[in-house]
Parts: sequence; C-alpha cells; structure tokens
Amino acid sequence: MNQSHPLMLLSEMEPGQFADSFVLLVSRERATTRDGKPYFRVQFRDHALTATAMVWSDTPWFEDCEAKWAEGEFYKVRARYAESKYGPQLDIDRIRPVNADDTADGFDPGLYYSRSRFASEDMFAELTGIAREQITEIPLQKLVLEILAQYEDQIKTIAAASKNHHAFTGGYLEHVLSVTKTACFLADKYLGYYQQMQPALNKSLVIAGAILHDIGKLTELEYRPHGSRYTPAGRLIGHILLGRDLVREHAARIEDLNPETLLRLEHMIVSHQNLPEWGSPIAPHTPEALLVHYADDIDAKFHMMATTLENILPGNEDEFSGRDNALRRSIFLGLKSTE
Amino acid sequence: MNQSHPLMLLSEMEPGQFADSFVLLVSRERATTRDGKPYFRVQFRDHALTATAMVWSDTPWFEDCEAKWAEGEFYKVRARYAESKYGPQLDIDRIRPVNADDTADGFDPGLYYSRSRFASEDMFAELTGIAREQITEIPLQKLVLEILAQYEDQIKTIAAASKNHHAFTGGYLEHVLSVTKTACFLADKYLGYYQQMQPALNKSLVIAGAILHDIGKLTELEYRPHGSRYTPAGRLIGHILLGRDLVREHAARIEDLNPETLLRLEHMIVSHQNLPEWGSPIAPHTPEALLVHYADDIDAKFHMMATTLENILPGNEDEFSGRDNALRRSIFLGLKSTE
Amino acid sequence: MNQSHPLMLLSEMEPGQFADSFVLLVSRERATTRDGKPYFRVQFRDHALTATAMVWSDTPWFEDCEAKWAEGEFYKVRARYAESKYGPQLDIDRIRPVNADDTADGFDPGLYYSRSRFASEDMFAELTGIAREQITEIPLQKLVLEILAQYEDQIKTIAAASKNHHAFTGGYLEHVLSVTKTACFLADKYLGYYQQMQPALNKSLVIAGAILHDIGKLTELEYRPHGSRYTPAGRLIGHILLGRDLVREHAARIEDLNPETLLRLEHMIVSHQNLPEWGSPIAPHTPEALLVHYADDIDAKFHMMATTLENILPGNEDEFSGRDNALRRSIFLGLKSTE
Amino acid sequence: MNQSHPLMLLSEMEPGQFADSFVLLVSRERATTRDGKPYFRVQFRDHALTATAMVWSDTPWFEDCEAKWAEGEFYKVRARYAESKYGPQLDIDRIRPVNADDTADGFDPGLYYSRSRFASEDMFAELTGIAREQITEIPLQKLVLEILAQYEDQIKTIAAASKNHHAFTGGYLEHVLSVTKTACFLADKYLGYYQQMQPALNKSLVIAGAILHDIGKLTELEYRPHGSRYTPAGRLIGHILLGRDLVREHAARIEDLNPETLLRLEHMIVSHQNLPEWGSPIAPHTPEALLVHYADDIDAKFHMMATTLENILPGNEDEFSGRDNALRRSIFLGLKSTE
Amino acid sequence: MNQSHPLMLLSEMEPGQFADSFVLLVSRERATTRDGKPYFRVQFRDHALTATAMVWSDTPWFEDCEAKWAEGEFYKVRARYAESKYGPQLDIDRIRPVNADDTADGFDPGLYYSRSRFASEDMFAELTGIAREQITEIPLQKLVLEILAQYEDQIKTIAAASKNHHAFTGGYLEHVLSVTKTACFLADKYLGYYQQMQPALNKSLVIAGAILHDIGKLTELEYRPHGSRYTPAGRLIGHILLGRDLVREHAARIEDLNPETLLRLEHMIVSHQNLPEWGSPIAPHTPEALLVHYADDIDAKFHMMATTLENILPGNEDEFSGRDNALRRSIFLGLKSTE
Amino acid sequence: MNQSHPLMLLSEMEPGQFADSFVLLVSRERATTRDGKPYFRVQFRDHALTATAMVWSDTPWFEDCEAKWAEGEFYKVRARYAESKYGPQLDIDRIRPVNADDTADGFDPGLYYSRSRFASEDMFAELTGIAREQITEIPLQKLVLEILAQYEDQIKTIAAASKNHHAFTGGYLEHVLSVTKTACFLADKYLGYYQQMQPALNKSLVIAGAILHDIGKLTELEYRPHGSRYTPAGRLIGHILLGRDLVREHAARIEDLNPETLLRLEHMIVSHQNLPEWGSPIAPHTPEALLVHYADDIDAKFHMMATTLENILPGNEDEFSGRDNALRRSIFLGLKSTE
Repeated sequence: MNQSHPLMLLSEMEPGQFADSFVLLVSRERATTRDGKPYFRVQFRDHALTATAMVWSDTPWFEDCEAKWAEGEFYKVRARYAESKYGPQLDIDRIRPVNADDTADGFDPGLYYSRSRFASEDMFAELTGIAREQITEIPLQKLVLEILAQYEDQIKTIAAASKNHHAFTGGYLEHVLSVTKTACFLADKYLGYYQQMQPALNKSLVIAGAILHDIGKLTELEYRPHGSRYTPAGRLIGHILLGRDLVREHAARIEDLNPETLLRLEHMIVSHQNLPEWGSPIAPHTPEALLVHYADDIDAKFHMMATTLENILPGNEDEFSGRDNALRRSIFLGLKSTE
Repeated sequence: MNQSHPLMLLSEMEPGQFADSFVLLVSRERATTRDGKPYFRVQFRDHALTATAMVWSDTPWFEDCEAKWAEGEFYKVRARYAESKYGPQLDIDRIRPVNADDTADGFDPGLYYSRSRFASEDMFAELTGIAREQITEIPLQKLVLEILAQYEDQIKTIAAASKNHHAFTGGYLEHVLSVTKTACFLADKYLGYYQQMQPALNKSLVIAGAILHDIGKLTELEYRPHGSRYTPAGRLIGHILLGRDLVREHAARIEDLNPETLLRLEHMIVSHQNLPEWGSPIAPHTPEALLVHYADDIDAKFHMMATTLENILPGNEDEFSGRDNALRRSIFLGLKSTE
Repeated sequence: MNQSHPLMLLSEMEPGQFADSFVLLVSRERATTRDGKPYFRVQFRDHALTATAMVWSDTPWFEDCEAKWAEGEFYKVRARYAESKYGPQLDIDRIRPVNADDTADGFDPGLYYSRSRFASEDMFAELTGIAREQITEIPLQKLVLEILAQYEDQIKTIAAASKNHHAFTGGYLEHVLSVTKTACFLADKYLGYYQQMQPALNKSLVIAGAILHDIGKLTELEYRPHGSRYTPAGRLIGHILLGRDLVREHAARIEDLNPETLLRLEHMIVSHQNLPEWGSPIAPHTPEALLVHYADDIDAKFHMMATTLENILPGNEDEFSGRDNALRRSIFLGLKSTE
Repeated sequence: MNQSHPLMLLSEMEPGQFADSFVLLVSRERATTRDGKPYFRVQFRDHALTATAMVWSDTPWFEDCEAKWAEGEFYKVRARYAESKYGPQLDIDRIRPVNADDTADGFDPGLYYSRSRFASEDMFAELTGIAREQITEIPLQKLVLEILAQYEDQIKTIAAASKNHHAFTGGYLEHVLSVTKTACFLADKYLGYYQQMQPALNKSLVIAGAILHDIGKLTELEYRPHGSRYTPAGRLIGHILLGRDLVREHAARIEDLNPETLLRLEHMIVSHQNLPEWGSPIAPHTPEALLVHYADDIDAKFHMMATTLENILPGNEDEFSGRDNALRRSIFLGLKSTE
Repeated sequence: MNQSHPLMLLSEMEPGQFADSFVLLVSRERATTRDGKPYFRVQFRDHALTATAMVWSDTPWFEDCEAKWAEGEFYKVRARYAESKYGPQLDIDRIRPVNADDTADGFDPGLYYSRSRFASEDMFAELTGIAREQITEIPLQKLVLEILAQYEDQIKTIAAASKNHHAFTGGYLEHVLSVTKTACFLADKYLGYYQQMQPALNKSLVIAGAILHDIGKLTELEYRPHGSRYTPAGRLIGHILLGRDLVREHAARIEDLNPETLLRLEHMIVSHQNLPEWGSPIAPHTPEALLVHYADDIDAKFHMMATTLENILPGNEDEFSGRDNALRRSIFLGLKSTE
Repeated sequence: MNQSHPLMLLSEMEPGQFADSFVLLVSRERATTRDGKPYFRVQFRDHALTATAMVWSDTPWFEDCEAKWAEGEFYKVRARYAESKYGPQLDIDRIRPVNADDTADGFDPGLYYSRSRFASEDMFAELTGIAREQITEIPLQKLVLEILAQYEDQIKTIAAASKNHHAFTGGYLEHVLSVTKTACFLADKYLGYYQQMQPALNKSLVIAGAILHDIGKLTELEYRPHGSRYTPAGRLIGHILLGRDLVREHAARIEDLNPETLLRLEHMIVSHQNLPEWGSPIAPHTPEALLVHYADDIDAKFHMMATTLENILPGNEDEFSGRDNALRRSIFLGLKSTE
C-alpha cells in the first residue's frame, strides 16, 4: 500500500485497510487500565457503520480527546480498520477536527444526519390542519391541538425510533402525518360502508388516535441529531404507557371532554400495537382502535421495505436485497436481463 | 303454555319451547336404521341458527320429505326445540311448504339470504373502471379485464367466505372492490413518498393484485344462496394456489405480458395472507405484495368488527358485545348512562 | 318421583330433576318477545352453579319479578332443572322470597357468599404494620400508608379477581398480605446473600411493590358481594395501568419522594405479571420487581391448587381431582388404600 | 514464518496464517470504489469453507481477473487468511490457474464437488423400474414416466437442496429414490394391515407421490456443480407450488387420467412438508399423503445425522459432535475408552 | 311413539328417544343425597358412547345394583336417552342382565370389546423371532428376550393407549410389532447407504429400541378389557420414565451388557417422542434413536387415519370425514360421482 | 508499542494488543497437520474469557507443551490477542509456568476459580440440621440423611451448573440450601393458611423435595475446579431422570418408606422444572411439587440478576447493564445524577 492514503467512507473499509475518512464522534467514555492509567473508548460513525477507537494516554491526541473532543462533532481520521468481538475497530494513526477546506474534498455533514424528506414546517401545518378540520368533537379537537402546540418543537424534530423505521430527524412527524392520512381515508371509507353500526364509527376519535398514538415517544426516546436513545422511563415503562400519561394530563384540563371519549382515546393508545408480544397489553376492542393499529402498522412496515429499495447501490446486479433490513427479509429487485 | 302456538324465529326459541316458525331447508340426507328402515336427517335454519330434524319413516311427512322437499326451499314448521350433543334439534309436529298467505304473517325470504348492501352491477362497473384507468401496463390490464369479463357472473354473485367475513351473496365483490380502493389509496400515497425506490412502486401491479388476490375463491367455494361450502379442491389445495392457477392460465394467452410482471403478480397472490399459519407459504417480498396484504387484512378485520356492531339488538344495555363474533373478542359498545 | 319435593342444592340437581332449592338472584334483564310482550331473563345461583330462568308475562310471579325482585336477594324456588346451549336452565313452578322459617330448613346465606377465612380488620392492621415498620424510606412509606388509609374500606372488602384465585370478599387483602409476607422473607434472605449488589437490594421498595402491585384491582373490578365484574376501564385499560395511575396520582402529592424510587415502584407494578402474554408489557428489569413477581405468582398458583384440595367432597375415592379448576390440571389426591 | 509456504486446505487455515492453497472460484462481482476505480469481489472455496478476496485495480492479477477468471475454475493461491464481519477473507499474494503439475502436489477436483455415492444411471433405472412395476393405475404411471423421461438429465444431476441435506450432484435423485423405496415399503405393509379402509390405500398414488413430491426443485434451484442456488421463482413461489405446476402441465396431456387421481396427487405435493411453518399450506388429508410426508421427512433427517457421523475427523476423541450440522444438535459419538 | 320399543345401539339414540339397548357396565360409584339416602352413579357404554344413569334408592333395581351389578358385565336396558352438562344420560325404565336368549336378538359381546385384528400368539412369536435373529449383540438380545418372556402375558393383552391409537386389546403388541418391522427396514436400508458412519449404525440397538420403546405402558396403564386407564405412577411419572426403569432393572442382571449399549438404549426410550411438548425430555441424539422415533410416529399417525377410513358408515356420501378423530382433521373420502 | 509489555487481564485485551498475562490452561488437544506434523490446540482463560493458542511443532515451547503442560495449571504468557471465527485467539510469543515471584506482581489463583461466598462446612451442617428437624416422617428423613451422608464430599464441592447460575465450586450446595429455606418458609406459611386441604400439605415432603430436587447434578455434571462439564449420561438422559434414579436406589433400602411418599417424592423431582420446554416431562400435580418448583425457580433467576449487579465495574456510568447475562436482559442500575 503506497504513500497516498485513499479517502474512503468508514462503512466501505475492508478489515485491514488503512485509509482516511470523515467521521462523526458519537460517544466518548473514560476508563482506567489495570495499572491506573486513564484511557478513552470513543465511537465514530458514518451513515452506515459505527466503529470504536481506543485512545491511550500515551498517544499524541489523548489530551485533545480529554479536553476538546465532543459528541456530535466531526473529525478527519487516518486509521486502520479491523473487526473484533466488540465489533468494528479503528486503530488511529492521525486525527484532527474537520475544517473548512474539507468540504472541497467532499465532506458533507448531511451524509451523517439523515432527516425526513419533507419539511417539518409543512408537515406540522398539515397535521394541525387535519386536526382542526376533521376532529369535529370540539373538546377532543382542543385536546389534540393543545398537545400539538405545546410540544411543537419536539414533534417537529424527533425521530420515530432509535432504529427500525423513521429513525431520523423529523421521522416522528413524517410517520404520524402519514398514519393520520391513512386513518382518515379508512374512516371516511368505512363510515360510508357501515352506516348501521351502533355506535357509529367516530371519525374524530380515529383522527385524534392517529395523531396521538405514538405521543409517548416524546419521553421514551431522548432525541439527539446523531441518534436517539431510550430513556430509563422509556425502557422501564414504555412509550405506550407514557403516551397515555401525557394525554391524561392534558385531558384533565379540558373541562367538557366526554369521559367515554377519553376512555376510548386512551384505549386506542394502549392497543395500537395490537398484540401483547408487540407491546400492547390489550388488543383493539373498538373499531377506531382497529383502524389506527392498521394505519400505523402498514406505515412502519412499508417504510422498512421502501428504504431497503431506496438504498440498493447503483450497479447492483443481484435479484434480491440482503436480509440486513428491519424486515429481516430479502426483497425482490427484479430479474436479471439475461435470464 | 296455551293452545295457540306463538310464531317465533327459530333462533329465538328456548330449549323445550314449542312454537311455529318459518324455516329454510339447507340439507337433507337419507340414512337407514339398524333394522333397515329409511329415515332422513334434515337441516333447517333461519338467518342465525341451524337445527336438525329427524324424519322417521312412520311420520306423515316422510313421503313428502322423500319426494318433494328440496334444499333452498322454505317451510312453516310447528316443532319443539331442543339441544343435544349434535347441536340444536327440532322435534316436528307439523310441517308444510310456505305459501302466499304467509307473507301476511310476516314471512320474508330476504331475512334468510343476506347479501351485500351494494348493487353488484354498480360494484362491478366500478371495479372494471378502476382496472381500465389505473392499470397502465397494458398487457396486465388486459389480463385483469379478461378475467373480470369471463367470470363476471360468478364475481357478481359469490360470497367471500363460508363464514368469517363477507359471507353473503355479493360479498366477494364488495370485499374485492374495497380492498382495491384501499390499495389504490396506499399506492398513490407511497408513490409520492418514496420516489427513490429501485425499482419504483408499480401501481398497476398493486391494482391488479388487489383485484385478483382472492380469485381462487371462485373454485375454492361452491356458492349457494343459502350458504357457500368448500369444494374438495378448496380443502385439499386452497384458494391461494387455485387463484394462481387461474391467473397463470389466462396469462398464458396474453402474448406480450412481461414474465417479471407475471411472477410479481403470482407472488402477490401467494403471499397475500402474509404468514404460513394464516395460509401463505411465503411472506410478501415485494412492496406491492405488502400493500395488497394490508389492504386485504384490514378490510376483513374491520368487516368482522363492524358487523358485530351492526347486529347489536335494539334495547341492549350491555357495555360490551359478546365474544361470539369472528374476532373472538368483546367489542366496546359504550358506557351506561348511569355510570 | 313422588309428591313431596326434595330440598336440594341447585348445583346438585340432575337434568330433568324437579326439586326445591334456595337460590340467590344475581341478575335480572328485561326483554321483549317478537309479538311485543315483556319478559325477564333472571339468573339464580348457589355457591357452585348459575342457572337461568325465563319469566314470561303470563306467569303468576311476573309482577313480583318486575316490581320487587332484586339482585343480591334470596328466593326459595320449586323448579325443573335442564341443560341447554345457553347453559343451565330452571323451569320455575313456584317461587317466593326466603323467610325467617327457612333457616330451620337449613338455609344459610353464608353458603352463597364466600369470604376470606381471615378477619379483614386483622389483615389490614398487619399489612399496615408491615408498611410502617419495614418501609424505611420515609416518603415511600408515607405514600403506601396514605393509599392504604384512603382506600381502607375497599381494600378490606374487595375480591382479588372475578374468578381464578381469591375471588371472594376480602380475597384481595388476603392475597396482598400473603404476597407481602413472602416478598419480605425473600428480601431479607437475599439481602443477606448478595451484599455486593450495586445498587443494593432495596427492601423498602420490595415491600411497597408487594403491597401496591395489584392496587389497580380497585378500579378494574366492580365489587359486589355476589360476584365481582370488570368495569369498562378494567377491560379497555387493565389493572396494571390503572394501578400505576393511582400510585402516580398519590405520589404527586408526596413532596420529597425520590423520582428514581417512584420510577422503580411504577416499574414493579407494570412488570409484576412478568410476560406480555400474562399481561405485563415489560418484564422485571430490577431485582425488586423480580421478587414481587414471584411472590405474587406463587400465591396465586398455590391458592388454585389448595382450594381444589379443600373442595374435594367427603367420601371421594378418586386418586386425582378433576381438571375443572383454575390450573386446568388433575391434582393428585393419594393412592387408594387397596392398591 | 519461514520462506517455504505450507500447502494447506483453505478450511484448515487459522486467522493470520499465510499459506498456499488450491481453491475453486465460485463468484466474481465487479464494483467501483468511491473515486471511480473498478475492483472485483471474488469468492473462493474448498469443500468446507468459502472466503472472499478483493482484487484492486492496481494488483498484477487484476487484468486476468477481468479477462480470464471464471466461475467454476480452479486456482492455486498464496494468501493470508483473515476473519471479518463479512466472513472469511483472503489477502492474495500470488495466484495462478491450476495446471497439470498440481495433481502431483495433491490437487484433486473431486474434493471440491461432492456428489452422490451412487451412480445416477443406476438410480434412475431403478426409479423408472419402480414406477413401471408398482404404479398399476396406467394413466398415472404414464404421467410419472413421461416426467421422468422428459427431465431425465436434470433429475440425474441436480442436488436436493442448496444446503441442509443431499446438497450435492445427484443428491436429488438419491433422495427421491430413497423416499420412494420407503414409501413403497410402508404402502405394502399398511395395505396388509388395514384392509377395510374406504377407499383402500392406493399404492400407485403413494409411489407416484414419492417420485414427484420434490419435482419443483427442478425450477426452484439452479443447479451448478459448484453449488446450487435459488431462482427468483424459487424464492417468490417455492418448490411446492412449482412442482404442482409441472405435474399439472403434464397431466393435462394424459387423456384418461382420473380427475380424482390428479387431485390426490396434487394434494400429496402440496402437503408433503406437513405443517405451514415447514412450508406446506395444507396438512396431509389422505393416507397416501401422510406416508409420503413421513418417507420424505425421515430420509432428510437421517441424512443430516448420518453425514455428521461420516464427517467426524479421524483421531477425534470427543464424546459428542459439534452442533454445526443441519440438525443443530450434538450427536453422540461414544464413550471414551477411559471412562 | 308406539308400544313396541325399538332395539337400538346406545350410540345411535337421539336425545329424548326411548328404546331398548344392550349395554356394558363400566363403572358404579356409590354416593349419598343431601338428606342421607344412598344412590349409585352408573356408567354404561357400547363401542362408541358412554352414558350415565342415576340409580336412586326408591327404584326397584336399587338392591340389585348394590348387591349384584358389576363392572364388565352386560345388561339389557330400556331407557330414555338425554344430554346434559355431565354428558350423555340414561333414564332407566327397566333393566336386567343379558341372558342366553339375547344372542338371538343380535347381542354380541364382541361389539363392545375391540381387539387387534391379528392373533396375539402369532404377533408375539414374530416379535420374539425378530429379536432372536436380528439382535446380534448377544447380551442385548438376552435383555430383550428376558423382558419379552417375563411380561409375555401382559404384552399379549394390553392396549397401546387409553384412547388415540391402538386403544384395544392386543393393540400394544400390534403397534410394537409394526414399529419393529419398520425400524428393521429402515436400519437395513440406511446401513447400506451410509457405510462411513463413525460409529456404524447399530441395527441390534434399533431393533431393541423398537421393541422396548413403549415398555413403560405396562405400568403406565391399567389394562381392563372394557377400557384401559392411567395408574397414578402413569400420571405422575409417565411411561417414558417407567419404561426406562424397567429396562434398567433387567439390565442390571445381564452381566456382560456393554454400559454404552445400555446408555444408548435408555436414550432411545427417553427420546422416542422427539420433542418436549410431545413428552420426551431430550430429542434423539443418536441415529438409532432417530429411526425408532420415526417408526413409532408414523405407525401411530397412520393408525389414526386408517381407522377413520375404516369407520366410515356404509352409504355415506360425504367427500370428507368429520374431524372427530385422533388427528382432529377431515380426511378426504373421494369425489362424489356427480361432480 | 514500546519494550516494556503491560501486564493485563486476558479478558481486557483488545484485538491486536500485545501484552503479558497470567492464564489458566483449561484444555490441550493434540492434532496433526496435513503434512503429518503434530501440533496442539490449547485453551487458556482467566475468570471471564477463554482464548485458544496453536502450538506448532517448530516453536520452542512445543516440547514442554507435549511433556509438561497440564489442565488446571497456570502460566505467564506474552502474546498478541486476536479474534477469529473460532473465537478469541492468542498468538504466543513467550510462555512459562507461574512461579512464586509472580504473586508479587499480583498473580492470584483465587481470581480464576470462583466459589461460594459461604463455607461448605457450614452450609452442609445447616442443610443436614433442617433435614433432621423438619422432616418428621422418619423413613423419609432417613432417606434424605443417608443420601446427604453418602455424597457429602461431592455435595460440598460441585457447582449447580456449567454456566447460567451458581456455576462455581460450592454453588450446588449454596443453591440447594437456599431453595430449602424458601421451601420451608412457604410450607409453614401455607400450612397455616389452608388447613382444610385433603390431604394436608406435607412439610416433610416439601423439605425432602427441596433438598433432593437437583440431586441428579451429581451425575449430570463432571465437576472440575476450572469448570464443570456435562457427562454423556447428563446429555443423553438429563439430571431430572438421573436424580430420580439415585433417589429410587436409596429408597429401595429404606424398609418402611411409604410407597406413596416415594411416588410423591419422585414426582417432585420429575416436575421441578414445571414445563416440558424447561425440561420437566410432567408439570407439578401436587402442592408440594408446586412449592419446590417455585423455590427453585426464584433462587436461580434471582442469582442471575444479583450476580449481574455484583459484577458492574466500578466507575460505570450507564443506567442499564448490558444484556450478556443469563437473563438476556438489561438490568436497571439507576438514574444518572445529572438527570
């Protein structure tokens, strides 16, 4: 391997390869060796791969690491890539913060932070509009609009998950808006079909449930642009219960909210994952809850399949994707022309 | 209990009760007693309950039973109702065919045959229209339209199942049209969202798959206005495989049909029930198959819940339905006013 | 069968048998026949069997049924017993309220209402004492004692379930006290064993969790001396979530309660049924939660087995009980002497 | 490590080891680096291990790789062996095609291609003989013989699977013949036992089903001497459905084939894997289908266990095999002599 | 219904029917009414149905019932048949023991006791012959022959189960012999195929395992000609463990039995039901155990299917059997001629 | 990396790191290369990690390895650590047996052998005391005491498992004593509660069952101070059956032991793992067996959670443990102070 080092994506390095790369620092933990010397365990990533580097106290960059390096910042690193039982490793040879000139070499922070393809402002306005126009039960509308207003910033920003689906900035809102639109379509359609239901299908509830079904994500996950992570309450209680808490707290302040409406809304949140093994202690026992479950489920699953197909590399000639996607399934790409 | 016999619905009779009732004959089987005498085992039903009556050779109506009674005809019967390990029983005291005067007493054949609330003509026209306008891949459109045209009469008539959901005349078409509309909505929506997919979402395929996903029902079930039943091929092979056969046979005659299109269409039929334990040997491996699965699943499940709520008796004061519905679940009806 | 009618327990009557019996009225529903006449569907039971009787408008006791009969009252009935698809039936021949003389014939209301073998006063005092002495984290102790004090009457009275285990008056308290004692024993023992745990096992939390684990039963079930039943919130939300609500509401008023203590307490309630399919959305993730789960589980299961063995009829000669108990299992009774 | 490089099997190399090896090229994919240079990802294997090598554009063998290297050919390679997240890797130092002299050094292509221990000619003749003699229902015999004749070459060659069992040249035929013999034995035996069955056990069907049960493998798998792989139709439709297609196509040309015979034969193919989770949408509903399922299942499972025991290395002193076999189970080898 | 009562099979009586019948008394339990009078609960059956009769102390046959009636004896009864929550009931009008004249009326005790279609003497001789000829490891042969000799009478007599399969006199031996023959066939076949196995397939062990796999049935079940029942040890320990006990006890007396042979034999018994949920704590870990499991499983399942087809009533016109067989599956009977 | 090599724990080495370490030799297997040269595959470990080293015939320490190295002895090794598909590897540079001076450098054999925190003598005396005082059924007491006496040395020494829980010297006795104490507490408590059980809860049996429930571990596992391993009988038969054997053998010598007592004791051993998938062929069918199951289960599961919390490294700042514990679950450690 010669003098000039190739500039590569971290995620494209082969084990043993020695190259330059732009990386994002995502965690930095201090520890101590057996003989009392401090060191750091630092994680770097690009959009697709995370690798760990050990920063020993006798390396030239130890002091910078201790004093200046921070989560969420970018570095240019020259390192050898390796695999281990702890996962991917980087053996650092040189490292410095990214600077203005790096853009010329192709550095693009946008590569590292994925975010929704839709503008949060637009999505939020559309969602609020739906709530205002389609929720005709006024106290319920008020409840939904107050929650949207109070958490507007978070709602516009957070991801829908730490991985699996819509795990990017704005992903929560993208998912919620999409679920709400599908729920709206289904409610309109089935209102027309089944006019003898006692009680009638309540479209206001369907919309409210769709908008609020995942509201517990606000406290289940701690949003960070470089990757969301679970909060302790998120792990010990779960977003379904946390979301119902939030709705109940706000509902207590809406004077004329019908108790049955609130009970039905809580039930929609509690049951939206349908089965105990998927996280819902109780299955949908109302038609509104059933619709929200499906609108949610299809949006999550379709996102998993669609992003798999959006990430097929150009020039790929396989007939199927790999199985390393959220569906754990090979997706069909098409017949080869020669067959 | 006095001399004049009440005129009741079969399904409202209590064990031991003796009453008159209008009933539909649904099966009649000849058998022989140990000492060689012939008898008939006859099943009668109304819209909600089926009961069996034994017609022994020494009864006055044995000859009529042998010579004239037929499946699908109506009778007025005076009988005692009982329960047994063979299920509900009728001990006949008198019986005669329904006649013109019975209408005055409230006899209404419509009660016994349930059918779609929508006109088959209208639904078929709408479905054909969707195929013509939305399937833009011409050979595929041709395939769908030919199948619709060839089986028009059956498609307009048959039920979607022998029980569970849409189990009534026209139910198949009602279900297929509803699935197609949902699939259409989802395809349009996700085409807009995921524009980088390779290959792009194929709306023509989604529509074709939605229209044809259950086409095997044509041979899996033998339609009879008084209740569909499984054919031997339906039980031994199943509608998923039978439907794919039908599509392949017709496809063989469409000259310019792309082999990959056909493979994808077959896969949609094969995978539309999603999981092996639900009947699909293979899960959806294409985005089009995923959409059709969900559009189908939600329509079936919502129908189960909606019909439960449409059949709550007037005056009912319970807060939940019973569990004797296709979802095996108590559906919430609402809080009692006094609570 | 002769003139004098035997006086029997309802649950010992054979189908077709005609006898006198003391019964408890547990429900009374008004309905209307097809031709517009009112009738009542009334349920009677003894300690072991519930049967339904139809009260038609032309019976002598119809007026009394309409005007005077009430749930929770006792009647002496002469009736024929029968089985049907609706379950056990009573065909009433005569009926009157129980009167003072019936005691001489062996009528004992205690037979119909089962209740804990322990005095509620004593159990409540013992439970409160444990909370006061063993919960050494003062704000937590305060929380527990306030909840106990506020709901004292209900806690002393309600059953632990509508069936399955401890389904009798005082059963909730009997179960909670037993769980708390076992949890206390386990906490003491394992505190001694595992002294290096970081953080140490928190006995205060174990006791608090044991006392409060089922507190949601207060709102999940509507207690009635003749049988508890689920409330709508009980069915749509479930006692796990309802119990956590109650604890959180009270905790909000305890000023110095450590947020981590509250989080751990909530987690104990949420996880006490261990597995999603048993009702807990999240499994125990703390040692305290693990202990409460086991203390609860063993008390419920042992109660099921013990009551099966307490209800073996005298003179029984079988080697195993039947399977009609909450464990769905034949319990071994012992070898026959002759074997 | 000294100058003379050891000649080793690829599958016996330790990570970090540098050695010479004869390897089979099994795949070669072209790709492009970030800065636009082409490279190849090439897979080599011996009988037990597959490793990947990267061929960069600045290596001396790049041109040969591009112009001359081909799947299915042999090479002598000097390389360092390594492990990575992508699996085993080869870092090539030198490489050339195998030549005539290599045989003297122990190169044996037979090592790389495993094949049935039985001659395909003999097996095919035996299978055809059984069909001719034991299928006495003539149109059915004709159907079977025509299929055997038409696909003779493929049947004699292909493997039964890409891995799991009989995954070698001729493996399909070896498996089918073995299944047929067992099915024949069972049919004869149970024909003798159960003479009152209505209808009687149909031995012709059992034989036909055994011979054709896996016929879909012809299109599910693409046979290659260096390893079979799934076709798109294999993945999206599956061999059960593909096999039934093939039988139906041929059956359509047999004029006097009884429709019930065909239906039963189709059912045998459809149900031969017994359970939905094993791939059969429908379980065996005929005695013939039941026998074929078992004859197939035992042959596959016994093959897995037998080959584990055939591949125990000489000198092995363990009492159990490892678990890295198709049964995922440690097979007992025997007690150590010293115990 | 007229004066002369029909003579019917108990199992063919409809609820409410009043008829004469020959029945077998299978159990008689004494009990006491609330007011202290003794009565008996007696069970009668024919080959297909068991019904209960109550014998009250004021009936003419009470004294006979107390003093003379015995399990296993036959009676002619005139009674009304009914259904109840306790199952089928007989309301006795007259009853007397069967006498010599009843044969003329068609009484045949053979109808009530089903037994193997093969002579026990012949089967036992054949099984012993196989053991003698095919088990070439002499101490193992000795073990098997001694067990066969010691329990010869029981082996020739008992049923293989209380229901499910081979639940008739001689059924155990019929099943064991059939399993042994299949195991023998498979051992011979695979010995020929897999000659490189280390260690080689041990046919002696296969035969011994097949003969002894179910030997625990001797103590798990108490054989009675009118129906086997589980012993307490059978329920609390199970036939797998009891069978291994029996083999170990005998093996302790065979001096030169190889300890590994005994270990392998025990493992075959322990693992012959393959999966924990089918009763085997450990799955087959030797090729011999695998063969015995399959030989056993197929014989049991084929028996279930075959007896369903042997019991189709003459004149039946259905295309499928009912599901009330041991496989819980409708078996295909054939297409109707008119289809 | 400089001249002086760090002295590290094997389990703290990063891939590629070169360091000195004290290690325990746990296995040594001789093998032969393709060209006939002998080599050894040697496994070394510390308390947390096991790594493999290859000893080739041309290394200076080959002779020592062949002649002197032994399992269970300690070595000081200078080596490079690496990861491979075979797991962790050591590339040895120098190696020598540990000597007296190494203690000064911190070598502590105690680190490598974990053992119970309680003295075996004390635990054994306590267990024997419980048996003597609490088992009041004398022949049963005799049985238990004889077994304890006969296997005293093994009982004091062995581990309860090869991994999972109590997998250290003395672990078996620590676990059994703890289970016995819990069982004792539960028996006392429920004896007081359920005084009407027929038969009464038998405390002697509960104690005996608790002491003997795992007695089969004596033969299931081969104890070695450096790690227990399964015996062939342990794998092929399992500790549940082996433990029952041992009890039955001893019971045969206790003259006046009640057969029912023995049957109940055997059942407790057989059922103590509760479910087939956990290893018990039969679930608890007696109250004594139920208590022993729970006392055992909670002790095992609490041990898993407690040791996870005992092994959190000092200075750890995470809110949850990892999932690499026997419960496969992240255990909550506490909120971070800053939150």
